[in-house]
Amino acid sequence: MLNSLTSDRAAALRSGLPDDRFAAADAAHLQEPRGRYAGQAGLLALPRSTDEVATLIRLASQMRVPVIPYGGGTGLVGGQVAEAGPVPLILSLEKMRTVRAVYPEENVLIADAGVILADVQAAAEQAGRLFPLSLAAEGSARIGGNLSTNAGGTGVLRYGNARDLCLGIEAVLPSGEVFHGLSRLRKDNTGYDLRHLLIGAEGTLGIITAAALKLFPRPSASGTALMQVTSPAAALSLLALARDHVGDGISAFELIGAQGFAFLAETMPQIRNPWAATPDWCVLIELGLTGPQNPASALEGLFAAAREAGLVQDGMIAQNAQQSADFWSIRENIPEANRRIGSVSSHDISVPLGALADFIAEGGVRIARLGKFRINCFGHVGDGNLHYNVFPAPGKSRADHEVERPQIKRLVHDLVHEMGGSVSAEHGVGRLKVADMERYADPTKLDAMRAIKAALDPHGIMNPGAVLRAADT
Amino acid sequence: MLNSLTSDRAAALRSGLPDDRFAAADAAHLQEPRGRYAGQAGLLALPRSTDEVATLIRLASQMRVPVIPYGGGTGLVGGQVAEAGPVPLILSLEKMRTVRAVYPEENVLIADAGVILADVQAAAEQAGRLFPLSLAAEGSARIGGNLSTNAGGTGVLRYGNARDLCLGIEAVLPSGEVFHGLSRLRKDNTGYDLRHLLIGAEGTLGIITAAALKLFPRPSASGTALMQVTSPAAALSLLALARDHVGDGISAFELIGAQGFAFLAETMPQIRNPWAATPDWCVLIELGLTGPQNPASALEGLFAAAREAGLVQDGMIAQNAQQSADFWSIRENIPEANRRIGSVSSHDISVPLGALADFIAEGGVRIARLGKFRINCFGHVGDGNLHYNVFPAPGKSRADHEVERPQIKRLVHDLVHEMGGSVSAEHGVGRLKVADMERYADPTKLDAMRAIKAALDPHGIMNPGAVLRAADT
Repeated sequence: MLNSLTSDRAAALRSGLPDDRFAAADAAHLQEPRGRYAGQAGLLALPRSTDEVATLIRLASQMRVPVIPYGGGTGLVGGQVAEAGPVPLILSLEKMRTVRAVYPEENVLIADAGVILADVQAAAEQAGRLFPLSLAAEGSARIGGNLSTNAGGTGVLRYGNARDLCLGIEAVLPSGEVFHGLSRLRKDNTGYDLRHLLIGAEGTLGIITAAALKLFPRPSASGTALMQVTSPAAALSLLALARDHVGDGISAFELIGAQGFAFLAETMPQIRNPWAATPDWCVLIELGLTGPQNPASALEGLFAAAREAGLVQDGMIAQNAQQSADFWSIRENIPEANRRIGSVSSHDISVPLGALADFIAEGGVRIARLGKFRINCFGHVGDGNLHYNVFPAPGKSRADHEVERPQIKRLVHDLVHEMGGSVSAEHGVGRLKVADMERYADPTKLDAMRAIKAALDPHGIMNPGAVLRAADT
Repeated sequence: MLNSLTSDRAAALRSGLPDDRFAAADAAHLQEPRGRYAGQAGLLALPRSTDEVATLIRLASQMRVPVIPYGGGTGLVGGQVAEAGPVPLILSLEKMRTVRAVYPEENVLIADAGVILADVQAAAEQAGRLFPLSLAAEGSARIGGNLSTNAGGTGVLRYGNARDLCLGIEAVLPSGEVFHGLSRLRKDNTGYDLRHLLIGAEGTLGIITAAALKLFPRPSASGTALMQVTSPAAALSLLALARDHVGDGISAFELIGAQGFAFLAETMPQIRNPWAATPDWCVLIELGLTGPQNPASALEGLFAAAREAGLVQDGMIAQNAQQSADFWSIRENIPEANRRIGSVSSHDISVPLGALADFIAEGGVRIARLGKFRINCFGHVGDGNLHYNVFPAPGKSRADHEVERPQIKRLVHDLVHEMGGSVSAEHGVGRLKVADMERYADPTKLDAMRAIKAALDPHGIMNPGAVLRAADT
């Protein structure tokens, strides 16, 4: 049973650290980007070191007070906000934002968990290296949160998810003990991989305080193209063809549908649509090559071969950095256009690559049975990860479809599940998808997760209600 | 407390499955490659399906009988052999060797855990794809064992360890419940990553029964070179230079010292030494490229740049497949040459890349203080993973140094630990390195491992004594 952070308990917590490590939780720490959750007012802790985090967790554990870890606050599933239950301590690592060390020759960077993702990228670039994790919120997301949620983004196709970019972590476990696992090793087979257990656990098994991150050589030249594909299936065939042409050099491969362009035109007319006639489907391709191969000619060769194979109809290769940025701004502004239109229901899903075209077709058919909706389906098609968002017909609003939302969500998630997919490809479970987990996850997995949670966090203080239902709710 | 598999209990186990699923454990299942452990005679189970594995584990759990999982038997740390304690059930998946499905367009292959690694590679090749896990024992190691031990090998530099090549697993947990996690997804953030917890757990948390494996495009052309480097530090600089030249195209980068050539000459004179004068250090480089770049000219360009930079003195680029195979046979036969010489002590260690040259230098100095020994240090230098083996001086034998072995082991492992390295880079802990784990591992990690073990395997039936000390020993 957890206890609320009463003023007595808050005083006990405050006694452990200097006074400036605490503040009243402000609005910024009690909300999340989509405004669907509102946290309870309470105490915000701003520790300056791993030892201070350990002190806080130890005290919270002794008093059985819940702890809500807060990264950059950019998560989309409510993992950073506790609406109900005992009043928690909100623990933000925003004052721990030192890049501890960079080892360019090892391709390793060690950062405090509170370092903003863009700052990690910049520190890598300063050392002549690439940190390839890249996502819309990179200007405010923090690396500790990126790891705790195993963030994805546009670079996954080539470089993997956040967990694949991490060699080691330092973390405070729910007991308040520090796990010193900040390894720079590429190979280490000594026991269970706690790193991978804490990564993606969304703060329910402990607090990541620092990470050893993998860097990569920066490709010596890059190239960007937009290609009109004949269908989503053709997009996947184009990806296979591209791999034959340039091997590992494909840095991004993003699907964009006509609906995305239409929403941009409607809400953000300053974003230029480069197509004379907007195609039903196109892909944004980014190559990053090293060696003598020229990206523009590789893209030209790919386009010629793909047209020969009947996969593409039209295409544009960026002739300079500005054109490349213009192509990317289309992809990057679609989420904002979606927000302005206002979705009835949005889904971060993945399916096996082979099922992706069928999913798009069948999803459209099933949703049409429920009524008149617009679907904006876009995203990381090379990973099988689609942002599949359902919008009201023109003239209707989100509010007009409150009743249908659960139906639509269920329909999409059921279809994903039938196809062997995931109802949370990159955003995580948070508080938003706990019921989905209970419905769709393998029961043995859920049992094992609960057993691990109970073993490492017997009082259930760490982010209660996220990922797994809290014991007392 | 565990119970021995008495004849009564064996009869109870046998009642659960058809009779031909059992045999008396033969010599092959009671030994390991280096002959340092000898298992107790007992019952061998040969299940044909995941359900049969589940039945066996359920019965063993009810009777508290230990289960020793047996893959291909090629592990080098005694993880597959129980010498002492209650008589166990030996469970081999060698009858489960079906490649269940190949999805070339998804770059995914699903295999039973009992499929031999070379057969996985062959099935991938038949589909025009590459499964890049490659190691000396690939002709007899099984993929379930490769995953349970998170196997390494020569392809790690480019493609990662076994865990990095696995999208999903199916496993029987110690309760006998089946975890259905055979996902083909590239992105799935729904809860704790049980896959990564079971991978590398060496059969102590359950039995992997099948895996969804990542395939890759086959590079369209490959090239092999041997280059004489001026020092181990120069080898690492050469690797950085190679990355600038060919990006992600380096498939292997192996360090070989003069001692390795000397042992080959002494024990396997049929292996040709291509050097006129054997260098102190050389590297074997394998490129696998796609696109217009020619591997031989890339290697020539690299060699010229490296000579310019003072990193290499001499080099040979394979002119055909036979020469490439000859270069590789040097690297591949060093372990056998070592076996014939007979090491006093052998170590599978890793250190941060930046510490690697210092480790080699300092290791030599410290060992020389103990007496006259020969050191054969070779391996996956791009991963910081060295096989660091200490041999008697000429005229002496392994038996002459029984007394010094623990000292040497301790000295090497202490040095590795001082440098932030790992005393088991790719072979795992097994039974051989349990005491090392207790000495060197982070105490918080050990506590967490014990808590997880107790949570998932409360009776301690799964591979007791491996990785973690058994409760009753």
